[in-house]
Amino acid sequence: MSSSGLLEDLVEALRCLPGVGPKSAQRMALHLLQRDRDAARRLGSTLVDAMDRVHHCEQCRIFTENTLCRWCSDPARVSSQLCIVESPADVLAIDRATDFRGKFFLLLGHLSPLDGIGPKDLGLDLLESRLETGGVDEITLATNPTVEGQATARYIGDIAARHGVTVMQIARGVPVGSELEFADGGTLAVAFSHRTRLS
Amino acid sequence: MSSSGLLEDLVEALRCLPGVGPKSAQRMALHLLQRDRDAARRLGSTLVDAMDRVHHCEQCRIFTENTLCRWCSDPARVSSQLCIVESPADVLAIDRATDFRGKFFLLLGHLSPLDGIGPKDLGLDLLESRLETGGVDEITLATNPTVEGQATARYIGDIAARHGVTVMQIARGVPVGSELEFADGGTLAVAFSHRTRLS
Ligand SMILES: [Zn+2]
Ligand SMILES: [Zn+2]
Repeated sequence: MSSSGLLEDLVEALRCLPGVGPKSAQRMALHLLQRDRDAARRLGSTLVDAMDRVHHCEQCRIFTENTLCRWCSDPARVSSQLCIVESPADVLAIDRATDFRGKFFLLLGHLSPLDGIGPKDLGLDLLESRLETGGVDEITLATNPTVEGQATARYIGDIAARHGVTVMQIARGVPVGSELEFADGGTLAVAFSHRTRLS
Repeated sequence: MSSSGLLEDLVEALRCLPGVGPKSAQRMALHLLQRDRDAARRLGSTLVDAMDRVHHCEQCRIFTENTLCRWCSDPARVSSQLCIVESPADVLAIDRATDFRGKFFLLLGHLSPLDGIGPKDLGLDLLESRLETGGVDEITLATNPTVEGQATARYIGDIAARHGVTVMQIARGVPVGSELEFADGGTLAVAFSHRTRLS
């Protein structure tokens, strides 16, 4: 890259961002140089800082720069209830949308033997030792409603049951506000077999 | 942002990128933390480096970290021909698509009295002193085919004419490979009035 220079290096470097191709990388680089150098410098140093200092919470694997994340270190949250999710975005979504006030446990993926992702990669040894220690009465499985997510949920449910912990799973069914005719067959089948009495 | 932490700072900082809203900023931050920390560190340091060291070429205002850009410093390019463009992306596009082998001059915008953008903001004093010095025989106006771009081209054409420099303008007309019925009326009118004899 010697002949091309720093602008081209920047365009190339921006392509590490998901969904950013050569054209939008170029547009981003020129925009920052022309209009927003201070914000770009701030982004640059924040990137380096975050990559160096953000790691996983010791208890739940959520990203944090501290030993414990803000959920685990929040004394107002109930430690006896644990919600198990696949991705950090799920934590934020559940925190925003529901009234769950327990703690989380983050898998950062799902079981996938073909990709070599086993229980240890999901931190299930950490989860198991936490269940062993006691203090957790109930776990709620909130993995994705996919084949892999469900297999992972079943696997974790078995571990929890062995430790005498109540196992819950978030409901699957037709999404609120959606139209029935657009629901896929699998969702409809689940919604139908999980039907509840109205009154 | 004390309670939210470094991950949230990173999500916020990513929003300086054009076209990046809160959701994609979050997706980018999590992707980098989970999968590409080295690339993210490299992006971070390249950003800071580029913002600190990239400035405008002394001769043509193209972005470079050197005194002269790679076009101005290329002895293989003809100095007597100058192509005038509005944006850095135009330089790259013309360089890629055409056989123009002269040098460029970058306006970084167009005349816009209402926004307070006058000749000096486009570097036209620099351009004029370059024409005065001599050595430029011909300029090609390649500003955008918009009202503002055309007004800017006319203004620059007048300056060049005063210095006895030949003024060319890139052709306007229907885009190659497009279908006539989808061309807008203005383009069609220009294409028609600029029609040329075929043989
Ligand atoms: Zn935690
Ligand atoms: Zn230059």
